Amino acid sequence: MSGKLERLFTPRAIAVVGVSQDPVRPGSQAVRALLQNGYRGGIFPVNPNYPAHEGLRCYPSVAAIEAEIDLAIIGIPSRGVNAVIAECATKKIPYAAVLSGGFREIGPGGAALQDEMVALARAGGMRLVGPNCLGYANVHDNVYAAFGSITRPPKLWPGPVSLVTQSGGFGYSIAIACAQEGMGFRNVIATGNEADLDAIEFIDALIDDAETRIVVAYIEGLPNARALLELGRRAARAGKPLLVWKGGITEAGARAAATHTANLTGSYDFYRALFRQAGIIEIREIHEAVDLVKALQARKLPHGRRIAVMGGSGGSAIVFADAAEQAGLAMAELSPLTTERVSRVIPAIGSALNPVDFTAGYIAGGGGEKFRAAVQAVIDDAAVDAVCINFATTAGDAARVGAEALGEIARATNKPLFAFLSTPREFAGDALAILDAERVPTLPSPVRVAKVIAALASYRELRERAAAPAGEPAPARNGVQRIAIGPRMSETASKAVLERIGITVTRDVLVQSADEVPLERLRAPFVVKIASPDIGHKTDIGAVKLNVAGREALGAAVQEVLAAAREHAPRAAIEGVIVSEMVTGGFELLAGAVNDAVFGPVVVLGAGGIFAEALNDRTCRIAPFGREVAVEMLGELRCAAMLRGLRGNPAASFDAVADVLVRLSRFAWDYRDTVAEVDINPLIATPQAAIAADALIVGRHAG
Amino acid sequence: MSGKLERLFTPRAIAVVGVSQDPVRPGSQAVRALLQNGYRGGIFPVNPNYPAHEGLRCYPSVAAIEAEIDLAIIGIPSRGVNAVIAECATKKIPYAAVLSGGFREIGPGGAALQDEMVALARAGGMRLVGPNCLGYANVHDNVYAAFGSITRPPKLWPGPVSLVTQSGGFGYSIAIACAQEGMGFRNVIATGNEADLDAIEFIDALIDDAETRIVVAYIEGLPNARALLELGRRAARAGKPLLVWKGGITEAGARAAATHTANLTGSYDFYRALFRQAGIIEIREIHEAVDLVKALQARKLPHGRRIAVMGGSGGSAIVFADAAEQAGLAMAELSPLTTERVSRVIPAIGSALNPVDFTAGYIAGGGGEKFRAAVQAVIDDAAVDAVCINFATTAGDAARVGAEALGEIARATNKPLFAFLSTPREFAGDALAILDAERVPTLPSPVRVAKVIAALASYRELRERAAAPAGEPAPARNGVQRIAIGPRMSETASKAVLERIGITVTRDVLVQSADEVPLERLRAPFVVKIASPDIGHKTDIGAVKLNVAGREALGAAVQEVLAAAREHAPRAAIEGVIVSEMVTGGFELLAGAVNDAVFGPVVVLGAGGIFAEALNDRTCRIAPFGREVAVEMLGELRCAAMLRGLRGNPAASFDAVADVLVRLSRFAWDYRDTVAEVDINPLIATPQAAIAADALIVGRHAG
Repeated sequence: MSGKLERLFTPRAIAVVGVSQDPVRPGSQAVRALLQNGYRGGIFPVNPNYPAHEGLRCYPSVAAIEAEIDLAIIGIPSRGVNAVIAECATKKIPYAAVLSGGFREIGPGGAALQDEMVALARAGGMRLVGPNCLGYANVHDNVYAAFGSITRPPKLWPGPVSLVTQSGGFGYSIAIACAQEGMGFRNVIATGNEADLDAIEFIDALIDDAETRIVVAYIEGLPNARALLELGRRAARAGKPLLVWKGGITEAGARAAATHTANLTGSYDFYRALFRQAGIIEIREIHEAVDLVKALQARKLPHGRRIAVMGGSGGSAIVFADAAEQAGLAMAELSPLTTERVSRVIPAIGSALNPVDFTAGYIAGGGGEKFRAAVQAVIDDAAVDAVCINFATTAGDAARVGAEALGEIARATNKPLFAFLSTPREFAGDALAILDAERVPTLPSPVRVAKVIAALASYRELRERAAAPAGEPAPARNGVQRIAIGPRMSETASKAVLERIGITVTRDVLVQSADEVPLERLRAPFVVKIASPDIGHKTDIGAVKLNVAGREALGAAVQEVLAAAREHAPRAAIEGVIVSEMVTGGFELLAGAVNDAVFGPVVVLGAGGIFAEALNDRTCRIAPFGREVAVEMLGELRCAAMLRGLRGNPAASFDAVADVLVRLSRFAWDYRDTVAEVDINPLIATPQAAIAADALIVGRHAG
Repeated sequence: MSGKLERLFTPRAIAVVGVSQDPVRPGSQAVRALLQNGYRGGIFPVNPNYPAHEGLRCYPSVAAIEAEIDLAIIGIPSRGVNAVIAECATKKIPYAAVLSGGFREIGPGGAALQDEMVALARAGGMRLVGPNCLGYANVHDNVYAAFGSITRPPKLWPGPVSLVTQSGGFGYSIAIACAQEGMGFRNVIATGNEADLDAIEFIDALIDDAETRIVVAYIEGLPNARALLELGRRAARAGKPLLVWKGGITEAGARAAATHTANLTGSYDFYRALFRQAGIIEIREIHEAVDLVKALQARKLPHGRRIAVMGGSGGSAIVFADAAEQAGLAMAELSPLTTERVSRVIPAIGSALNPVDFTAGYIAGGGGEKFRAAVQAVIDDAAVDAVCINFATTAGDAARVGAEALGEIARATNKPLFAFLSTPREFAGDALAILDAERVPTLPSPVRVAKVIAALASYRELRERAAAPAGEPAPARNGVQRIAIGPRMSETASKAVLERIGITVTRDVLVQSADEVPLERLRAPFVVKIASPDIGHKTDIGAVKLNVAGREALGAAVQEVLAAAREHAPRAAIEGVIVSEMVTGGFELLAGAVNDAVFGPVVVLGAGGIFAEALNDRTCRIAPFGREVAVEMLGELRCAAMLRGLRGNPAASFDAVADVLVRLSRFAWDYRDTVAEVDINPLIATPQAAIAADALIVGRHAG
């Protein structure tokens, strides 16, 4: 590890405070793990009651250690920890891993201890891991500042994967599952209470770590979730996949998380939006993480979504095709040349189309030469982005021969090759070992192969966008006067703000009586509605009239609206009545921005009217963002088919709506210090324009 | 096996036609499998060129065998098969398993051979397995009428699971995956071309087989998919779970299936509807099948959806809670008594609420006594239907102690207990062996535990309904005159049929001119539309006018509609103009019935208007069905929220719509010989009624 946190992960000497004759004590476990795994630096156990521990000299205190120490592992009861921290600070030890529990997680008393610990560390220029954690390991250098499962068998072997987890027990389950499938690790970190170093800072350091190629994180909550956006983009630019499992995404899960840690959980919709924008790979199941890490280790991403599948098991091909289509992949159409090349080497009763059916018992024939030729022909086809070979129940020699052939092909191509093999390892005749060594990701289900190819294709698309210089709108130019934001702005004032940022609003007048309406300037039909910052659901109380035309009807509508407001909201401050040109022939959307506690400004787009009521048809993105993201949002709405125009109806202008979203995102970001919420409801999308027909802006600290 | 196909599965003597010195030949593989696995009946190899085979006397022909033979296994080239079949028939052999390929799957020549084979068998009273199949095995009795993967290691061990598969290679992958997780098998059958015995008949026999407790099937297509409905209900009544994976459910999958076999695939929506109605468990992934079979073997189904989770890993509990909520489970609220009992035995820093956090390192304490008490307290709570214990990375002695405690509890309770354990088998200190033996389903992911509990809860609900005497409407009484169905009936004639079966239709008159409309009997506003069996999309050509009121407007509307029809469909036969009372204040649905080639009559319900266009919001059920199913259909529509009444709008009458669906289902079933299609579009659901505003009935053989 070079750079960030270097001495934390590769300490030259370690003090372990809290060793004892009880081998279960965290400190004892850490010393044993360091010794057994062959850590090459100095180990300095500390306990005033022992002269020696595990054959090492045992020190009465940290201060008594003569050597320079890079890391103190602390595993004593919480009440004694802060004295040790102070001692470490005095000795200028740069890092401590506090394994002990009894801090913030137990309540106010523990929180006070934890705060004191952080203050002592800050004062002494020390950084802390934990407290209340399993600790961490640098598998390459045999650094084990840990206890529990991290130090127990199965031992992880060295490799390119690093894991950061806010749950030791669950996160390490992911590591074990990967290790069982042959994947090796660099750093594994259980972050515990995150009194000082947190998951964000660890991920940040791992992106810079030359030995880490893939980062997997299990996260329950982040006080600053937005930081993941920049991390994801940095990881994308570094070409290092970042896989994140967010726990606590449902109400039940979040409640469970609340009893577990004090972390903020945040809306999962916002997390998912952020993952897309940052090129972060979302995981939701252990074997999903295993499959993806295995495939990512091969370092070949499909350049598109056109796949071919080959095998002797028709059922496996069908199941693969089903799963592929459901995952958004397309079966490639092989070229006539490919079909001819394949036909030449497969039995006549097979099929040289995609799926290629080379019939059962084919692979081993002629030492696998024909099989190799068939696969090579398909991989050479320009219409194919990835290939899955269904070995299915192929076993013994046939499996070995097939694996060797695939290995040869894999070495010479940049296209990803995958295999489905259901034969258990012990009956597969070295096939799995060969395929692992040749980095041909091999999974025990064709469905999993299809899902992983689709995930890699999506990752490639999102990573490219995330790595590109952000396609964000330019910030407001210098010299433009800053817009003043009130605590809860009236419709008129809110629309004035929207106009200033370039969003089209309806043509309105605010009047006290119908006589004031300049009929020569406004075109009927009109919408007539009450103007009051105190009345939220105007429609529900009858304070909105649609489709009003003619002086007489206008007069009546103004009276009715005022009367309705007086009746249903007698204490509301009434600014008057707004008369607007009614927008017809459009589709109603909702657009808005919220300033979230952990994500900052987020823009939300939803369907209006019936779709909003019945379907909760919404999507969101972290602000600010550019046109491409805005268009993507529109495509995600279930009502997108309506917007595109059905049965010959004209399509709404995606451009105009996207422009509103981009401007809104820029505004929400630039004004994050003063704006809490923007609500455009409805935003009417017509074939020519997107027009804000009503709007509300709420300032921060609005009370 | 008693009863159906008894001598097929437990033959007393077997002839194997097609043995040779080449050990790869299917016949040779079958003989070796019979010998190696210890089949106890007589084995009679047949090949005129050898005096002996594998130490057995080899016969020149089937006829030359003196003993009575129950089964002939045939593995010779296809051109010679039919002569052997004829010989077997002469010898009154009741069953043959034809492993040879070269039949229907290779084209017309092979199909002719296959047809001849079936004719010979029928004439001789013989039943056939295959051809073109891996064959089958009865694992309990070591009958291996098979070759390839079924005869290769890993050997399946005896147990309660039977497998029927239309794909040998893929289906057997499911068996291998189950076997790797310790599950045992009864019969495994690869059905091949299904010239005679098909998947349906095998499943039927397995439901009656006393040794089979669970049936798993992989199916690509069924010429008579409706037969699954009765099979599922029989399985439900027998208490034997039937798990079905349907391959070829997407366009890509169905295309792949078309190159593979000639089976009909059928709409997957229809399959899924049938699965629900029949209590069949749908599977879509290999480990899903493994997890479910493992859990079903424990033979404890949750009585509801309220779950509790306990463990020392907070993250595992959060992940479990997330997955549980997403799968439709609810976290149980533990009673004060339970909480008190749990509090007494867990550490103070834990949590006695659900999820119960007994903190890390707790299980082994005091020989697992406290752990046992904590789990017992939770399982005793009447508000808890199932419990998941998160062992997570617990290893060695602690895992063993925990497993023993769970085993004890499991033996004494009918509530299902599950465990999540991520520690690999070799480090789990016998825990997995103990949990397997005690039938505590243990899975390597909390997400999988949650999904399996939800699937078991659904299975229990659906099985109860499927096993109950069918809640179907009574058939039409004797004496009721049968309704005549025309090839393509006009709206008026179609509505007359609907009225006769008790479905409300709009009040209509068919007129030639506006003068004929009896305004004293019909209430405005009206819908005016062309009456012609030849014009499908009336609205699109302007041949429908809505909201017509008054004699004058009515006259104009009638003229316009006639003119539009003449202009856009000059050759259409015009019956006149229909003037209907317009139904206002209702929600538009579509209801219909189709007479499917493989499912028979199916009733479809969908949203009308904007929802139909934008969302393809539909659901279906196999006809006939009762009220409960009809109400369930309504609940499945995305527009259900609209039907229930939003923002104070009145709810549509679910009762009235359900009544229409039930009547339609009965009609579609009773008239399946003459009705091809019924289309009610729209069916208008008001708070009081469900009214067919337009209808089309198409007779079969309508050309």
